[in-house]
Amino acid sequence: MRVGELSRRSGVSVASIKYYLREGLLPAGERTSPNQAAYDDGHLRRLRMIRALIDVGGLSVVATRDVLAAVDDPDLPLFQALGRASGTTTAAPASVEPEDEPDEAWEQAERTLAEHVAERGWQVSAENPAWRNAVGVLATYIRLGDADLANQLGLYMRTMEEVAAHEVAAVVDRGDRARTVEGVVVGTVLGDTLLAAVRRLAQQHQSLRLLGEAPTHPRG
Amino acid sequence: MRVGELSRRSGVSVASIKYYLREGLLPAGERTSPNQAAYDDGHLRRLRMIRALIDVGGLSVVATRDVLAAVDDPDLPLFQALGRASGTTTAAPASVEPEDEPDEAWEQAERTLAEHVAERGWQVSAENPAWRNAVGVLATYIRLGDADLANQLGLYMRTMEEVAAHEVAAVVDRGDRARTVEGVVVGTVLGDTLLAAVRRLAQQHQSLRLLGEAPTHPRG
Repeated sequence: MRVGELSRRSGVSVASIKYYLREGLLPAGERTSPNQAAYDDGHLRRLRMIRALIDVGGLSVVATRDVLAAVDDPDLPLFQALGRASGTTTAAPASVEPEDEPDEAWEQAERTLAEHVAERGWQVSAENPAWRNAVGVLATYIRLGDADLANQLGLYMRTMEEVAAHEVAAVVDRGDRARTVEGVVVGTVLGDTLLAAVRRLAQQHQSLRLLGEAPTHPRG
Repeated sequence: MRVGELSRRSGVSVASIKYYLREGLLPAGERTSPNQAAYDDGHLRRLRMIRALIDVGGLSVVATRDVLAAVDDPDLPLFQALGRASGTTTAAPASVEPEDEPDEAWEQAERTLAEHVAERGWQVSAENPAWRNAVGVLATYIRLGDADLANQLGLYMRTMEEVAAHEVAAVVDRGDRARTVEGVVVGTVLGDTLLAAVRRLAQQHQSLRLLGEAPTHPRG
């Protein structure tokens, strides 16, 4: 199909398609004349994935390109592709680290996380960007005097251990490597959004139970 | 203290402080002369909270102002303050809804969510922005042919029901209304980031268990 039909079928404007081609998110079509290229269902599928990661998952264009490179590299071991998806930072902040030296709150937060990780027997790397993000939030709780919020860490870890076991098993079950990696990328990034939404619905339900009245919600 | 000391003690630049004052995130100081104002520990605490919500929680300035208004309104019932915090969209996407009419995927996603909610006996409102976000992710899974990822919904709901019960109980336990609302706001927004980080660490641990090798992580 030509770029116009690709645009119509994907709902993505021609200008955006050209931008994704230039930025290397979408592979080039097959050139049929100096000014025309032909695209196939693979391009359509890739375009839908790009929009899902950007629009629904909240990834930047650069992060989307990086994570799609893992999908496209057939030689990348599966566990490394998992790591690449895990390195994306949907809900993760631009700056969690103290600008200068780690302060007392940072060190206390890192000790707390390390103790919990040891207690659960997790084998995780402090080089995983998620480690810094977790420490950053815990340190912020401590600095704000909200240490009671940091007490949720054990509960988060126990529940996420169960969630992650099902998530990893489900994508490995797909068998086909390319489909597995796609599932990892989409499930990791969009799963953040789904989990955050489900958490808010659960909070609404539990507020009603505990406070006897439902929170109201501004539209927005 | 003067604005210079407030800047030094908070680590926030004078320019940013003046911006937050103009935008109504930070209440004005007490005017001591036509060109000077005095600030107190309340301003310092508020500044730290603003930076936590923006830098660590990933909220926009506008969303931060809206949610702080709930903290500042002593007449706002607690359950409504919970709803206000819940309406913030840390990990939530700009556009999850189909641009035109809801398509078949959207309707199927909404039916799936409604069935799960009924099954768990949750009392939640379809006007909660989190409802749309959850439906948006599920619909995207369906459109991408990743319906197996949508199967995680039941697991997410069961685990988040337990998490939310502890979270709501913990902040209610604070007793003092202002401290409770602060806890709701900070815990809801930063909790998304912490939960996403813990999920990635758990995925690393489970990948190692299931695939026999740890994912490696690019620094980033």
